[in-house]
Amino acid sequence: MLYIIGLGLYDEKDITVRGLEAVKSCDLVFLEHYTAILQCDIAKLEEFYGKKVIIGDRDLVETEADQILEPAKTKNVALLVVGDVYGATTHSDIFVRCQKMGIEVKVIHNASIMNAVGCSGLQLYRFGQTVSVCFWSEHWKPSSYYPKIKINRDNNMHTLVLLDIKVKERSEENIIKGRDIFEPPRYMTINQCIEQLLEVEKEQHLGVYDEDTMVVGMARVACADQKIVYGKMKDLLRYDFGAPMHCLLIPAPQIDDPELDHLEYFKYKSE
Amino acid sequence: MLYIIGLGLYDEKDITVRGLEAVKSCDLVFLEHYTAILQCDIAKLEEFYGKKVIIGDRDLVETEADQILEPAKTKNVALLVVGDVYGATTHSDIFVRCQKMGIEVKVIHNASIMNAVGCSGLQLYRFGQTVSVCFWSEHWKPSSYYPKIKINRDNNMHTLVLLDIKVKERSEENIIKGRDIFEPPRYMTINQCIEQLLEVEKEQHLGVYDEDTMVVGMARVACADQKIVYGKMKDLLRYDFGAPMHCLLIPAPQIDDPELDHLEYFKYKSE
Repeated sequence: MLYIIGLGLYDEKDITVRGLEAVKSCDLVFLEHYTAILQCDIAKLEEFYGKKVIIGDRDLVETEADQILEPAKTKNVALLVVGDVYGATTHSDIFVRCQKMGIEVKVIHNASIMNAVGCSGLQLYRFGQTVSVCFWSEHWKPSSYYPKIKINRDNNMHTLVLLDIKVKERSEENIIKGRDIFEPPRYMTINQCIEQLLEVEKEQHLGVYDEDTMVVGMARVACADQKIVYGKMKDLLRYDFGAPMHCLLIPAPQIDDPELDHLEYFKYKSE
Repeated sequence: MLYIIGLGLYDEKDITVRGLEAVKSCDLVFLEHYTAILQCDIAKLEEFYGKKVIIGDRDLVETEADQILEPAKTKNVALLVVGDVYGATTHSDIFVRCQKMGIEVKVIHNASIMNAVGCSGLQLYRFGQTVSVCFWSEHWKPSSYYPKIKINRDNNMHTLVLLDIKVKERSEENIIKGRDIFEPPRYMTINQCIEQLLEVEKEQHLGVYDEDTMVVGMARVACADQKIVYGKMKDLLRYDFGAPMHCLLIPAPQIDDPELDHLEYFKYKSE
């Protein structure tokens, strides 16, 4: 049996009671730790569960997934996921592999950044497609999110912008030379994201947004020190949101009154 | 202090460990019980928490919210919400009122139907705006969801369709006569929803979908007996999904291969 268990967004206590019971019944516990990061030490998880937690990087969860799936044929195995289970395509792939291998799967849901951003005051049902902004490299500057944000804005929908994280990534040079040397982890900040967004607008100038567009910067959503600021892009460009993870909301051109009433409490004040 | 706590989607064990600790610290515990229903007995909640749970209907949570907020000025009060906290506009309103009254609010997130539908295999980031389908009455047949589904489909986004529930509602006659007589609760089924969708398509015929469009019917998502069926509208029109709550996904015209691989496991087979 494979349990895929969402951990929620903050620390060891955000697991559900059902999830905790499942973890405690497991012989092996893996933690997927590259599509999102945990906001607490893994040692705290281990102490809370009374179990050793094996860190699963991209290789383990994708190309070497058999290390998780083979034992699940005969034992109880847990795959822990930060946020909810189906936030990343990877976990859908794990489900499909289990079906093919005849392994029973139980999913235990939790809060995801996709629904927790409702705490901004922007109504969840008004969100359009979600976009991701990646770190640019010298030779690769993707901006496929730009037309997607345009579609959302043209149709009066909000946009959740997820920001890149790079965990255990290798430099282009090290990939070419086949060296397993990893860069230090990097987490895109709201400042970096807005800078990139404005650069793309400047180049493609379809008028999707500009530096005066009101946006919502959100850091460490659901954590004790979560930070939410509603302000102009140009103001948030320099605002210090602190530690990761960050995300950004670009509201629909028309924000409803109850949404504005709520956003009011997060309004930007110059530092 | 007011804690607004998501309960998740199934039973008493879907609360988070953090949420459970908060409930146990509270002097008063309310349950919002009209925008969604709990899939377990309230007695089971009470036993699990060791607390009396006061049912909050629409009147209590909206017009008479002071019954919840006044005590929160001096005591610990919990407002429990099925799913996640900000799924319904109401809870945003409660947050704003607390700010005005100087009451500290702590939100404890959980899974919402908005993210749990990822278990269908359709990727969450590809969903456009969410729509709601209401029961029609003789004189009121809203179909404002139809152009919204069109926008989503035209732009290759999936649509989550939420289905009406009527709890503690009065008939038009009883409202006019000012009588507090309540109708038995009603939960829209996937069958009723598809019937209505097809009727609207027939009237407005913009070609948004038809009876051969592949959709995903989902019942009791995250519960032990959840049911997911991927099939043509005309097939799901007669399929028995069992007890509430139901929802429907209308995929984007173009479904990606990994999504199809996952959906395959839920494919409709004639009964």
